[in-house]
Amino acid sequence: MVMNVHGKPMKTIWVHPERPGTVQLIDQRALPHKLFIEDVSSFESMLIAIRDMHVRGAPLIGVAAAFGMALAADSLSDSDWQNSLARDADSMRAARPTAVNLAWAVDQQMQVVSSHTSLQACREALWQKAQWIVDSDEKQCFAIGEHGLILLEEISARKKGEPINILTHCNAGWLACVNFGTATAPMYLAHEAQIPIHVWVDETRPRNQGAKLTAWELGQHGIHHTLIPDNAGGHLMQHGMVDIVIVGADRVAANGDAANKIGTYLKALAAFDNKVPFYVAMPSSTIDWNIQNGVYEIPIETRSEDEVRRMDGLLPNGLQGEVLICPESTQALNYGFDVTPARLITGLITERGVCDASEEGLRRLYPEHVKC
Amino acid sequence: MVMNVHGKPMKTIWVHPERPGTVQLIDQRALPHKLFIEDVSSFESMLIAIRDMHVRGAPLIGVAAAFGMALAADSLSDSDWQNSLARDADSMRAARPTAVNLAWAVDQQMQVVSSHTSLQACREALWQKAQWIVDSDEKQCFAIGEHGLILLEEISARKKGEPINILTHCNAGWLACVNFGTATAPMYLAHEAQIPIHVWVDETRPRNQGAKLTAWELGQHGIHHTLIPDNAGGHLMQHGMVDIVIVGADRVAANGDAANKIGTYLKALAAFDNKVPFYVAMPSSTIDWNIQNGVYEIPIETRSEDEVRRMDGLLPNGLQGEVLICPESTQALNYGFDVTPARLITGLITERGVCDASEEGLRRLYPEHVKC
Repeated sequence: MVMNVHGKPMKTIWVHPERPGTVQLIDQRALPHKLFIEDVSSFESMLIAIRDMHVRGAPLIGVAAAFGMALAADSLSDSDWQNSLARDADSMRAARPTAVNLAWAVDQQMQVVSSHTSLQACREALWQKAQWIVDSDEKQCFAIGEHGLILLEEISARKKGEPINILTHCNAGWLACVNFGTATAPMYLAHEAQIPIHVWVDETRPRNQGAKLTAWELGQHGIHHTLIPDNAGGHLMQHGMVDIVIVGADRVAANGDAANKIGTYLKALAAFDNKVPFYVAMPSSTIDWNIQNGVYEIPIETRSEDEVRRMDGLLPNGLQGEVLICPESTQALNYGFDVTPARLITGLITERGVCDASEEGLRRLYPEHVKC
Repeated sequence: MVMNVHGKPMKTIWVHPERPGTVQLIDQRALPHKLFIEDVSSFESMLIAIRDMHVRGAPLIGVAAAFGMALAADSLSDSDWQNSLARDADSMRAARPTAVNLAWAVDQQMQVVSSHTSLQACREALWQKAQWIVDSDEKQCFAIGEHGLILLEEISARKKGEPINILTHCNAGWLACVNFGTATAPMYLAHEAQIPIHVWVDETRPRNQGAKLTAWELGQHGIHHTLIPDNAGGHLMQHGMVDIVIVGADRVAANGDAANKIGTYLKALAAFDNKVPFYVAMPSSTIDWNIQNGVYEIPIETRSEDEVRRMDGLLPNGLQGEVLICPESTQALNYGFDVTPARLITGLITERGVCDASEEGLRRLYPEHVKC
């Protein structure tokens, strides 16, 4: 299975097929109105691509950071290269505060650095490790899709082949990863298996990742979907119009609490109130084993108030632009994420299978991580 | 107490001080970027003003419709005037489907019509009745404010004068009424009484009545407030940043279920989950005594999908304009309202006092309406 864009296979990030020291990625800021491929050939450019959200989504940020460290090594001369890479690693870790995958990927690369004494060999190993992270991410997403597919097959059987209505929030699609996505992987696999599905796409204010990215990638792949305001999900669930909710996660605590895009918690409450199964799909790299209580301990990024006050899109003249949607003097507050308590989550869909959102559930799948 | 705009007292609708057969109203489509006063001197213009949402908000729609019927009578000649007004009444009732106040106000005016045999006398009585509806609405909103103020005084005492954090959804402000508003009336009275308050204003997608109207009217009156995405309320309540939720209603069923702007139900769920008191403020004209179960019986208006797909605001060139926020081919679904089950509502704030959101609670305040 491949993800299609204009009918052609595509991923979010890859090494330039003709120029091995250059990384190519989709600059997601231009989506859905334009598909723009950016060539990134320096550490600094990758730092900007991450910080200014040319790429976003926890897994993709990790992959991009890993490539960034390889690019950093390429530009260094033999003197003091290890210290220089350590400084770059610090800058990279600080580029986005919430996503745990960023720090994880940088740490992976710094282990490569510390196990090499020659810059030349280290360079090669960093590119290899970055590609290994890419491949792992693809494999994990596909595995998440296979485990989630079983859930969808069950619902489809119960509905006797009537389309399954799936609600998702934000973009935990292939655009947030390298391929397949996390929350979307079961949808793509169901589509591949010709199980009829229909996806309710939350627009996901304030940055509209649902309206911009999820609607775009589902549409490009030919999956039936409908855009809805974030406010609508409760009503839909109350009236039996949602069979399952699947969202991604930016960080999952050891107790199963899940941080995801702001507004996820509200959907989990509505799902719980209406007995709609609510699943969080994520690779185990998203689990922060050091956090015991997600609601109280996961730090929540506050972002620019202009993301709330202004809205960008396509102007009638065909150019991208933005409008002010409130009085000029109005102040706004913009939390990027919220935390859904484990008690509202039906299950976690991981690359090793589906488990309860609890310490016990996670221990069953990841015995090597959970302390007794 | 008066509502201030640019430091001067203002209402949403009034009879022209120099031309008695003309009604003036704020054309709310230009807010918050421009304050535009529209002169309305025919039934047809008022019908358009209601249908195209120059005025909106259940109580204000009722008042505007009452003036519309008076304007209709002004334009008629003696022959067949009663049948003509009956036809106009039908057109007026059909202008907006959900708001119960519209039909109520038209019925009030048709009672005036049926009790007159002379057009001349009927005209005068229709203007008088319209003004009576205006005055009643102001009195009811003020009374709602007085009853709600008691709740805020209690919270203020408990917080020892620290600012009370109030969350509201959509615009149930004076812009939705004639004066004071419903959900906002307790806020304005608290402000007048120098009780420190701070209001979290949900932007209220897709039409952004919070960002456009509530932020504007609170700002004009000098009430401290912060605009937030609709997605944020759950996180704020989870972290003790909301002391009380007060919203308006478009229709309340006899069992206390409350229809209000889409997304209200999600906030009620979050309030319930975090033990934050959740109040619905509305005059008794909003109660539909014929509906026994709001969740299943209140009809929900579906609106244009372009309200979701496009967003209007102020362009960088200072003109109002709109942007497309999703792929051109994406379809959307746009329910205007949802229904919050009575079990999630702490109380209803009416012009007669605060009561439980239940048949028993409503019977206590409105014994004349509830069947035994």
